[in-house]
Amino acid sequence: MELSITAGCDTAWNRNGMAKSPVRAAGVPHPYWPRDLSIPGYVANDRSMHEILSFLFSVSGLFMLSTWVLTGRKWARDGRGQEFGVARRLAICWFAVCGFIHGVVEGWFSLYYDVIPSDQSFLSQLWKEYSRGDSRYVIADNFTVCMETVTAWFWGPLSLWTVFAFLANKPCRFVLQLMVSLGQLYGAVLYFYTEHRDGYSHSQMGHPLYFWFYFVFMNVLWIIIPLVLILDAWRHLQQAQTHTDLAQKEKTN
Amino acid sequence: MELSITAGCDTAWNRNGMAKSPVRAAGVPHPYWPRDLSIPGYVANDRSMHEILSFLFSVSGLFMLSTWVLTGRKWARDGRGQEFGVARRLAICWFAVCGFIHGVVEGWFSLYYDVIPSDQSFLSQLWKEYSRGDSRYVIADNFTVCMETVTAWFWGPLSLWTVFAFLANKPCRFVLQLMVSLGQLYGAVLYFYTEHRDGYSHSQMGHPLYFWFYFVFMNVLWIIIPLVLILDAWRHLQQAQTHTDLAQKEKTN
Repeated sequence: MELSITAGCDTAWNRNGMAKSPVRAAGVPHPYWPRDLSIPGYVANDRSMHEILSFLFSVSGLFMLSTWVLTGRKWARDGRGQEFGVARRLAICWFAVCGFIHGVVEGWFSLYYDVIPSDQSFLSQLWKEYSRGDSRYVIADNFTVCMETVTAWFWGPLSLWTVFAFLANKPCRFVLQLMVSLGQLYGAVLYFYTEHRDGYSHSQMGHPLYFWFYFVFMNVLWIIIPLVLILDAWRHLQQAQTHTDLAQKEKTN
Repeated sequence: MELSITAGCDTAWNRNGMAKSPVRAAGVPHPYWPRDLSIPGYVANDRSMHEILSFLFSVSGLFMLSTWVLTGRKWARDGRGQEFGVARRLAICWFAVCGFIHGVVEGWFSLYYDVIPSDQSFLSQLWKEYSRGDSRYVIADNFTVCMETVTAWFWGPLSLWTVFAFLANKPCRFVLQLMVSLGQLYGAVLYFYTEHRDGYSHSQMGHPLYFWFYFVFMNVLWIIIPLVLILDAWRHLQQAQTHTDLAQKEKTN
């Protein structure tokens, strides 16, 4: 018991990536913060930042474009049986992109977080590149692995279901929009809050690309957009409930 | 920079409560797991477990009872303008209890987590008692502090708003039920998942009171009940949307 518990702590403690001593930390050289982080078996990327970002943004762009085309088709109609407005089409495109990023990119992390530091497959290199903005990914920080796993396996499929629900004009479309957006918002808030309390120690604070673009910008999107979509879903669901409550009362009186 | 970063790590690392060395760990004796946990300034409770549990369950009972009475009043009506059924009344009582536990008990933790080990005020002693089932509370584990702060300041007030929304039959009542329940569910899933990956090292695994009652039972409630209430809210919101979509289509055709 005592043994397994000590092992438990040691594991948890290693996931937090703090070197036991400078000697340990001096192990494998790496570009991550804090600089004394211990990343056993780390292998540097052979793919350039440009290759990785081009892949991420072009595939996201393809998802966006194809969804934009789909939402513009004649058969695609909103609750009023009218064509989708620009804002609604963009919202549906957002969920398609989320389906890709949560399901594929974060899905990869949720499956291979333990081998990523030494792995050279494309998505592992993507995560080693992103980790320059947040090393919690390259050290498989416990909270990060748990939050990303929930995001990949729940918010990912639910994002795609949301796209389908709007295209097919299903009555659960705004319920799904609300659930996915709240899940994303809560995850992102905990993501920033835990790192804030860690003193932003897992990134080179203030670095224009790694801190501001990778860590701040790429994640703050999942705070601002879900907030807007939660309010939008709230408005629609509240209107529907008001309408139904009135009809119900008339029926009973 | 280097200095502040090192400080950052050290802080984060201490919040995870792993003893730097057996010498450090041998500091203050305490009843928490892992046994080599370092809890500087820890002061043992002078309140008994019975006093603490009696307080928690009697106050929760009072919130439950008073809400049960309120939901049974003649003026309290559901969407159809009819009296609340037993299941709905129990659901509203649940949100009232959540308002108390999130807002007051977890609210206290979110404000005083850093002094709780040495503090003897009643709610600090409650948390020192609960920590026997999960020592992450007595060492102010980073994820735990962040998740509890969101729970206290968002799901707490929103739980009370949900109670009011049902009593006043507001059209946002099921939207609130869905949001609070999903927030609670996600928080509880991350709570168990992070500890599972830590090898249940923060409790005496298998202990009937501390592990099974405090850690498992007291938290699994926030998985089972929210799941039921999410499905219930989904059903009601979907019905309302179906009803409204039909009416809208009739209007436009």
